[in-house]
Amino acid sequence: MEELLAPLRQAVREQGDLVRELREKGAPEQEVSKAAAELKSRKKTLEAKELALQPKEDTVDRVKMEDTLKRRFFYDQAFAIYGGVSGLYDFGPVGCALKNNILQVWRQHFIQEEQILEIDCTMLTPEPVLKTSGHVDKFADYMVKDAKTGECYRADHLLKAHLKKLMCEEKCSAGQVNEMEDVITQMDNYAQQELAALFVKYNVKSPATGNDLTPPVSFNLMFQTSIGPGGNMPGFLRPETAQGMFLNFKRLLEFNQGKLPFAAAQIGNSFRNEISPRSGLIRVREFTMAEIEHFVDPNEKVHPKFSNVADLEIMLFSSEAQTSGQSAQMMRLGDAVEQGVINNSVLGYFIGRIYLYLIKVGLSKDKVRFRQHMENEMAHYACDCWDAESKTSYGWIEIVGCADRSCYDLSCHSRATKVPLVAEKTLKEPKTVNVIQFEPNKSAIGMAYKKDAKLALEYLAVCDECYISDQEKLLSETGEFSFETDGKTFKLTKDMISVKRFQKTLHVEEITPNVIEPSFGIGRIMYSIYEHSFHIREGDEQRTYFSFPTIVAPYKCSILPLSQNQDFVPFIHQLAEAMTRNGVSYKVDDSSGSIGRRYARSDEIGVAFGITIDFDTVNKTPHTATLRDRDSMRQIRAEITELPDIVQDLANDTLKWADVESKYPVFEGQESSKKE
Amino acid sequence: MEELLAPLRQAVREQGDLVRELREKGAPEQEVSKAAAELKSRKKTLEAKELALQPKEDTVDRVKMEDTLKRRFFYDQAFAIYGGVSGLYDFGPVGCALKNNILQVWRQHFIQEEQILEIDCTMLTPEPVLKTSGHVDKFADYMVKDAKTGECYRADHLLKAHLKKLMCEEKCSAGQVNEMEDVITQMDNYAQQELAALFVKYNVKSPATGNDLTPPVSFNLMFQTSIGPGGNMPGFLRPETAQGMFLNFKRLLEFNQGKLPFAAAQIGNSFRNEISPRSGLIRVREFTMAEIEHFVDPNEKVHPKFSNVADLEIMLFSSEAQTSGQSAQMMRLGDAVEQGVINNSVLGYFIGRIYLYLIKVGLSKDKVRFRQHMENEMAHYACDCWDAESKTSYGWIEIVGCADRSCYDLSCHSRATKVPLVAEKTLKEPKTVNVIQFEPNKSAIGMAYKKDAKLALEYLAVCDECYISDQEKLLSETGEFSFETDGKTFKLTKDMISVKRFQKTLHVEEITPNVIEPSFGIGRIMYSIYEHSFHIREGDEQRTYFSFPTIVAPYKCSILPLSQNQDFVPFIHQLAEAMTRNGVSYKVDDSSGSIGRRYARSDEIGVAFGITIDFDTVNKTPHTATLRDRDSMRQIRAEITELPDIVQDLANDTLKWADVESKYPVFEGQESSKKE
Repeated sequence: MEELLAPLRQAVREQGDLVRELREKGAPEQEVSKAAAELKSRKKTLEAKELALQPKEDTVDRVKMEDTLKRRFFYDQAFAIYGGVSGLYDFGPVGCALKNNILQVWRQHFIQEEQILEIDCTMLTPEPVLKTSGHVDKFADYMVKDAKTGECYRADHLLKAHLKKLMCEEKCSAGQVNEMEDVITQMDNYAQQELAALFVKYNVKSPATGNDLTPPVSFNLMFQTSIGPGGNMPGFLRPETAQGMFLNFKRLLEFNQGKLPFAAAQIGNSFRNEISPRSGLIRVREFTMAEIEHFVDPNEKVHPKFSNVADLEIMLFSSEAQTSGQSAQMMRLGDAVEQGVINNSVLGYFIGRIYLYLIKVGLSKDKVRFRQHMENEMAHYACDCWDAESKTSYGWIEIVGCADRSCYDLSCHSRATKVPLVAEKTLKEPKTVNVIQFEPNKSAIGMAYKKDAKLALEYLAVCDECYISDQEKLLSETGEFSFETDGKTFKLTKDMISVKRFQKTLHVEEITPNVIEPSFGIGRIMYSIYEHSFHIREGDEQRTYFSFPTIVAPYKCSILPLSQNQDFVPFIHQLAEAMTRNGVSYKVDDSSGSIGRRYARSDEIGVAFGITIDFDTVNKTPHTATLRDRDSMRQIRAEITELPDIVQDLANDTLKWADVESKYPVFEGQESSKKE
Repeated sequence: MEELLAPLRQAVREQGDLVRELREKGAPEQEVSKAAAELKSRKKTLEAKELALQPKEDTVDRVKMEDTLKRRFFYDQAFAIYGGVSGLYDFGPVGCALKNNILQVWRQHFIQEEQILEIDCTMLTPEPVLKTSGHVDKFADYMVKDAKTGECYRADHLLKAHLKKLMCEEKCSAGQVNEMEDVITQMDNYAQQELAALFVKYNVKSPATGNDLTPPVSFNLMFQTSIGPGGNMPGFLRPETAQGMFLNFKRLLEFNQGKLPFAAAQIGNSFRNEISPRSGLIRVREFTMAEIEHFVDPNEKVHPKFSNVADLEIMLFSSEAQTSGQSAQMMRLGDAVEQGVINNSVLGYFIGRIYLYLIKVGLSKDKVRFRQHMENEMAHYACDCWDAESKTSYGWIEIVGCADRSCYDLSCHSRATKVPLVAEKTLKEPKTVNVIQFEPNKSAIGMAYKKDAKLALEYLAVCDECYISDQEKLLSETGEFSFETDGKTFKLTKDMISVKRFQKTLHVEEITPNVIEPSFGIGRIMYSIYEHSFHIREGDEQRTYFSFPTIVAPYKCSILPLSQNQDFVPFIHQLAEAMTRNGVSYKVDDSSGSIGRRYARSDEIGVAFGITIDFDTVNKTPHTATLRDRDSMRQIRAEITELPDIVQDLANDTLKWADVESKYPVFEGQESSKKE
């Protein structure tokens, strides 16, 4: 296998070296990004090959799995009786219970254990907030339309499909193939005009009708609406939950009695108006996220509990490994932070905690890795970013992002609203610090901007150090810099503003906290759990089951009377009442199928255990019933009064099935093991 | 007190009799509704007087309470640093935890105990669904605009305020006052034209500017957006969660193995674009609902577990009592169903369960009542409807609706989509039934509607009995009836269609289930809990607290070291870890305030218990600490290893504070009882 991969690894490594070299010698941005795109493409080829070479038993039978998910209403297309809407799904009872349990474990694992402040903000968001965050201007894809029918397509997807078709044609020369491959490699880097030119050059038509296409236009992916009746307050459905936490920063800091570090979290729905959603639950228009914003003093990016996770061995795919053609490597988290592979121990701590969470809710250890963003992937404000990825039949997909966003968000909102979003730190000893401030020439600004000058001065007063340094550089290089505030644009020249540096003795320090942001896509995590826990019983292709961990299993226990005989009814009620009292979810199946058939139905939706009431239950005292473990299909027999507590302990993970087997007589029920 | 109310009761009774009389003699609709509106107004006057006469200590100090809620960030206005948006609120850590707990109890109390099928549908909803449900056409209020500034006002609110001002003017004659009072009484009954005429007649101007107003227009209260990039799929944010359950009826029925009755439930956000939202949490633009749709065979509206709630004594305010000037009365639920005050025992069962839930989460027994809708209030499809109402400083407000919606929703969606939404019932013995069907004259319809005829025939094939009977009546009275399907309107005359009645022997019966719908407004329930549990410590106006029941308290326990001495730290960690293990939420307050001050802070956010670590904890073995009950402020002392389990049992309600006091030595800590 390594033999087959070696040349691909070599190709990645060479290109990685080239990119590094170009960067080092300060090559033009366009040249660098072209080389980086080629690197990305070679990485993709390598990864595709790696996946193709993996053992066959490692891949899930997606068709069979999706059939089960749909048939037992884990989830299904929304509004189906009205024809359905693509990218929108409804969760049925099993999917909804699983989702609730995943979120409940999330609350325990993060909110509770880390003492995080959970908040709940509105999804409706007025435009100015998302203007500041950059979503109004940048959260977009290019789209083309069929000129006659109006059908819309994502420009990059369509162009790529078109080129691939052309490349297969006989008349296509080797030179043309190379050129087209080059276009595909560069796809993410084209600006609107370049993309438009390519559509003309390759004569791309509407795939459904052969009609002409309109030129590519930028389509914002947010759902727009109007808040209030006046029509003068445009708003959007939030594209992420993060903004609500930045906007409430001051209230949260106060709630935490002014102290750093602290974290806020939010669980809720976000929205993304995809142009043409595909791939089932992986790319949808409405989805649940769980996000944490950990606010920390930039000078104290050290996590006191890091040692708790330092010994975890996690598959890490560093930027370095990616650019040199290597695979992801198992690495001790402590070593990764020490060696600087992971930027700091706060980020390292969260990577460890995210990993533990994913395993707890049912992802396979060998199908989870953390991939670092390469320099050209990273948003300009992030100083390090790692994605938790899960291996599925779609390849490796991102399920959790974990970024160090520095002070970007708070300082943007602070500048836009002129509300200082800072924490105060009382210094043990007064300290002398270097201060950098704008020194506006008020009269010159006043001359230039008259009554608007006040707005500019207010804006300049709340800018943070990084921003001031950046503008100072612009000022010295180009003689001016511009900014926008309250809808007005200001251009300041050297005669209007300078930057002052001086020393000051401080007793209290003002800090704009940095933010570490773990951001979970709950739908994608659920989908990964489905794939990682889907199994087919050995020797029986028809019997499928989901081996969900007990804590997230949609129901903890089935209650199954052997038949519809009325004598069983009081025992069903007795068990059901006790389960309810214990807070254990259960499902009674008293339908007429054979017990084996009903076990199969119960396994199919991942119910963790099953209690069967038979004639021994009714006829003998003390009354007993059997308890069956889904994964092993093994059974024990115990008194009916004990069973609810046993199931409760199993559900809370304070008892293991092996312990149960060692304590109670094993029951050899022919019905459960027999094929139907 | 009764003396003061007697004339008001008399006035209601007289008007109630008049309405009944008008109805009985078949008076014109307009006359009846005018009398009914007057009845409503008289009822309001009576209720206002009743509330005004209640003992003073029964009313909460809303200003003081809202100050606490805002200061401790239970909730606050959303987007405040951007100027805020009215009708949108964010929940802070305390409010969010309380909300999560309320929902968690809801899941236990309903989903779990009643074995309800919880589902999770999208909020984005395409237009045709809401066209069928009636929301596109009817979910609207009238609005007027300032002709110059564009500011919008709710027409009825503005007209009412304007008339009240006019009525106070000296030049206003008694006759004019009467006339205006009449207008106010009739406010809900005016059509657009009448309302427009009144704005002209009374010369209503914009209250802010004195500018002219535009004539009233109907403003739909749904937030509109566009799904997908094409602009050809208008959609809305759902105004209720119910529709998702109707649309998934077939999948749910199948999940329930085809059997009736069963219930579905959904918890999620809904949206309502109020014209000018006021009254804090009571009227907001985005809110969480929890709704149940209980699907039941209309011939078997009997609940098997009704006897479990039959002995509850609940304050019922029947339609009969309302129209005869009486107050709400305590009544045994069993008697209410038996006497027909409540239509059937399924509705009765849910009323009982709703009541138990409300008390469990913290509403006061004497501040909850169930009010039946009067005939003119009820939606035309409902056969009985009861609102749970809570007494607050805003008066009695609706917090839960509980309606018997008959088969209205399923049959609407069935006709619109031509998908039969029915259940099959296998009959024990074959039975002969009367069948009623449309008998279309295919050739006549074909002649009239050509290729659209097929649509009409499909539509006619799925209509249910009630609908067919209604159309039959129209056909015989007017000679025709019309319907719309797939955007096309059909008018059928006697030569095109008739109604056939015949007998058929059935082995399986098709049933369109009836729906009982309990619908919970979570924000309003939360607000009611705030008011009902807000207290001021006797003798100290500054110390306020919320007596939340332990199961919903945002945090179960505070951990309070006596001072910032480092010797306390290991004990804080020991307790925190044990609490986490037990799944008990806690909050450490190691700030520098006095212990009394920190108890006050803890009480203020309704933390149920507090553990204090003092020097006896550190110096003596076995190590002990004190445990304090928020409501009584009493304390006991116990071993530090025992405390987490005690708190867990208290939190789960398996242990009462009185039991704790009887088992452990009472601790007289001067710090806790001393005023600061």
